[in-house]
Amino acid sequence: MTEKLTIWTLDWVPQGPRGFVRDLRLRWAAEEAGLPYTIATVPFEGRETNHLNQQPFGQVPFLTDGDVTMFESGACLLHLARKSEDLMPKDAIGKSETLEWVVAALNSIEMVSVPWWFLKMSGDADNGLTDWLDGRLAHMERVLSEREWLAADRFTVADLLMADVLRVADLRAHGHRPATEAYVERLTNRAAFKKAHANQLTHFAAADETRGTA
Amino acid sequence: MTEKLTIWTLDWVPQGPRGFVRDLRLRWAAEEAGLPYTIATVPFEGRETNHLNQQPFGQVPFLTDGDVTMFESGACLLHLARKSEDLMPKDAIGKSETLEWVVAALNSIEMVSVPWWFLKMSGDADNGLTDWLDGRLAHMERVLSEREWLAADRFTVADLLMADVLRVADLRAHGHRPATEAYVERLTNRAAFKKAHANQLTHFAAADETRGTA
Repeated sequence: MTEKLTIWTLDWVPQGPRGFVRDLRLRWAAEEAGLPYTIATVPFEGRETNHLNQQPFGQVPFLTDGDVTMFESGACLLHLARKSEDLMPKDAIGKSETLEWVVAALNSIEMVSVPWWFLKMSGDADNGLTDWLDGRLAHMERVLSEREWLAADRFTVADLLMADVLRVADLRAHGHRPATEAYVERLTNRAAFKKAHANQLTHFAAADETRGTA
Repeated sequence: MTEKLTIWTLDWVPQGPRGFVRDLRLRWAAEEAGLPYTIATVPFEGRETNHLNQQPFGQVPFLTDGDVTMFESGACLLHLARKSEDLMPKDAIGKSETLEWVVAALNSIEMVSVPWWFLKMSGDADNGLTDWLDGRLAHMERVLSEREWLAADRFTVADLLMADVLRVADLRAHGHRPATEAYVERLTNRAAFKKAHANQLTHFAAADETRGTA
């Protein structure tokens, strides 16, 4: 076992998901916190079953960190946040606020936005989840019009995750939410996001050359 | 501020959701851990906006615990788990496994199962999420056929949450997954679940009498 943090992703993906594969969340967090990390990969071909012992749903990312292996990007973010005060305050209230907003991103926003997007991509743009989505995004717009950061009056891993959830192009094009848009702009203008995003694009582009599919 | 744990829910709900309102998750965790708690309520009428300062999406449950107030049932469960080894082991690997499976319940299963159920309730039983749901539930069936508990070879709050996610009648009636069914039966046969479930039913039934809607 190495003590070094390793973020696992796919060796290659098509153009569509580049810049949005969720290893970006972990790269971004590591960049914010100055945590050294390496990238390791599982093959895109056969991904549904070739790493079920590491990620039981056949997804990425997952991480290894010494004796710890962990899947679910939201859980990995909370793991990284325990390692660095840059990602989460140490006091009980700051930790609680960070935790509740991390879970809100996963279970109050993504639980609606990801299936809505999935149905939209499947050709059903005005689908049965649209009203529910609109309600949840309206609540977020109200919250983000009243504060700069979700938790503890400072940047935390909760903002990192929520911004990654909300920056999806189809969500941004659906409705008019100026506070949300400004929040996404502000978060994705952070140096750590830009570095993580560029590194993911470089990673997959390098694989194009190996595969001869550039 | 009181140090006492308070679980907040609605003062009344119609028959349909009784036994499934998510305060049950927090009641169940408190019963497992022997944590004393009280129940407090916000009115069902006007629930969309009458407690946005406590739960920004107008949902329940949320909790107060001394200086901490917290929403999102998944976050509240992790908060309670930090208070009691009955809910989560103290060692780093046990904690990591519990965390990853709590998030898996929220973001790999509920992110598909809840919208699928929502569309089904809206009259679209064979909807665009069904194949995705079937894949996720098949992965869970494989995992649950290989182990008794999700994390750390023992009961944790991850099992509590996953069982609550999987016990939904429409999911259980959709497909044949014997390991999942045995898991749900095993978890919902625990004394703490039965007590929490009965207490929720009693709470809402008592409100019927007050409202004169019994």
